[in-house]
Amino acid sequence: MLVLSSPSGAGKTTIARALLRSDRNLVMSVSATTRQPRPGEVEGRDYHFVDHESFEAMIREDRLLEHARVFDNLYGTPRQPVDGALAEGQDVLFDIDWQGTQQLRQNARADLVSIFILPPSVGELEKRLRSRAQDSDDVVRKRMAKAGDEMSHWPEYDYIVVNTDIEASVAAVQSILAAERLKRDRQIGLADFVNRLRGGEQVPG
Amino acid sequence: MLVLSSPSGAGKTTIARALLRSDRNLVMSVSATTRQPRPGEVEGRDYHFVDHESFEAMIREDRLLEHARVFDNLYGTPRQPVDGALAEGQDVLFDIDWQGTQQLRQNARADLVSIFILPPSVGELEKRLRSRAQDSDDVVRKRMAKAGDEMSHWPEYDYIVVNTDIEASVAAVQSILAAERLKRDRQIGLADFVNRLRGGEQVPG
Repeated sequence: MLVLSSPSGAGKTTIARALLRSDRNLVMSVSATTRQPRPGEVEGRDYHFVDHESFEAMIREDRLLEHARVFDNLYGTPRQPVDGALAEGQDVLFDIDWQGTQQLRQNARADLVSIFILPPSVGELEKRLRSRAQDSDDVVRKRMAKAGDEMSHWPEYDYIVVNTDIEASVAAVQSILAAERLKRDRQIGLADFVNRLRGGEQVPG
Repeated sequence: MLVLSSPSGAGKTTIARALLRSDRNLVMSVSATTRQPRPGEVEGRDYHFVDHESFEAMIREDRLLEHARVFDNLYGTPRQPVDGALAEGQDVLFDIDWQGTQQLRQNARADLVSIFILPPSVGELEKRLRSRAQDSDDVVRKRMAKAGDEMSHWPEYDYIVVNTDIEASVAAVQSILAAERLKRDRQIGLADFVNRLRGGEQVPG
């Protein structure tokens, strides 16, 4: 389980999409939300758009790995697709905030690698937030305030990537994923493999 | 401090050289040894070749970070070049065995990332050991026995790379190095950087 968090506007979504294109063993966890779709957002790809009543039912029936309120909307991670992907040996990418990350760390059975993406500067952050033309000044101000709050949680993450250059940042996250997969504890069957090597038996492939 | 260990013949030296060529912030720790140079080995690049008496003096004067006897020869890591490189902010690569790694973990003040390189099969390992034409059958047999012993220490390492393909293995170790540099605790000045971001002050570059 790989978590990407960042203040809105730091480039996280772009990084996540590039990762998913380059890594066939990685699947995205699609969040459920009660907020309205933005232009261009697709049901089932960007979010599962649900009404408040359905969302409350998911909470009651323990069908969410984590959930949180942001402004007036609810966001949450459906449990079943994550469990299914992990059971098939796939890695799952989460685009969630610090609240979601804390809950996921407590609620999920699999181990979790967390990465925090920081913008290179406040000017760049504000520029990126403003370029979303559909948002009003008021929403941008609220987002800047929320970004400051979100950024205060960087010490809770394993890795920090400052997104100065998008290609370098994608490569950085790819390196983290590759390295984590090479950790001793994540390599299943290694003890048997080494025993065969030491026993002198030829290992195929 | 990045340690590469492996049984002789697993491809560690080739990987180390490729890493050093690709990464200007990485320097090699050159071991001291009492064994005779092999054809093509260069003093100061492959080893510091010293006599027994000089080696014993280095031990007495605490000028070695670690040392060990392998067959009839002594091997050790001079302390001063490592301390110097780390003080200048460089990363140091060590090509040492499990005994050296254990001592380094105890004796060095800096933190240590350890990688164990495994051969893809016993057949491949033996082939690579035999292709060193200058070694007698007896030496090859001793090496195979030592390789088995060395491989039993894989659980003491952070990362395991099975060297099936040399280019993939070099990329794997590069990913580990890149990821370790992105770990939160290794990024100096991050708290100040985030404070400036949150305070709204523009950060240059």
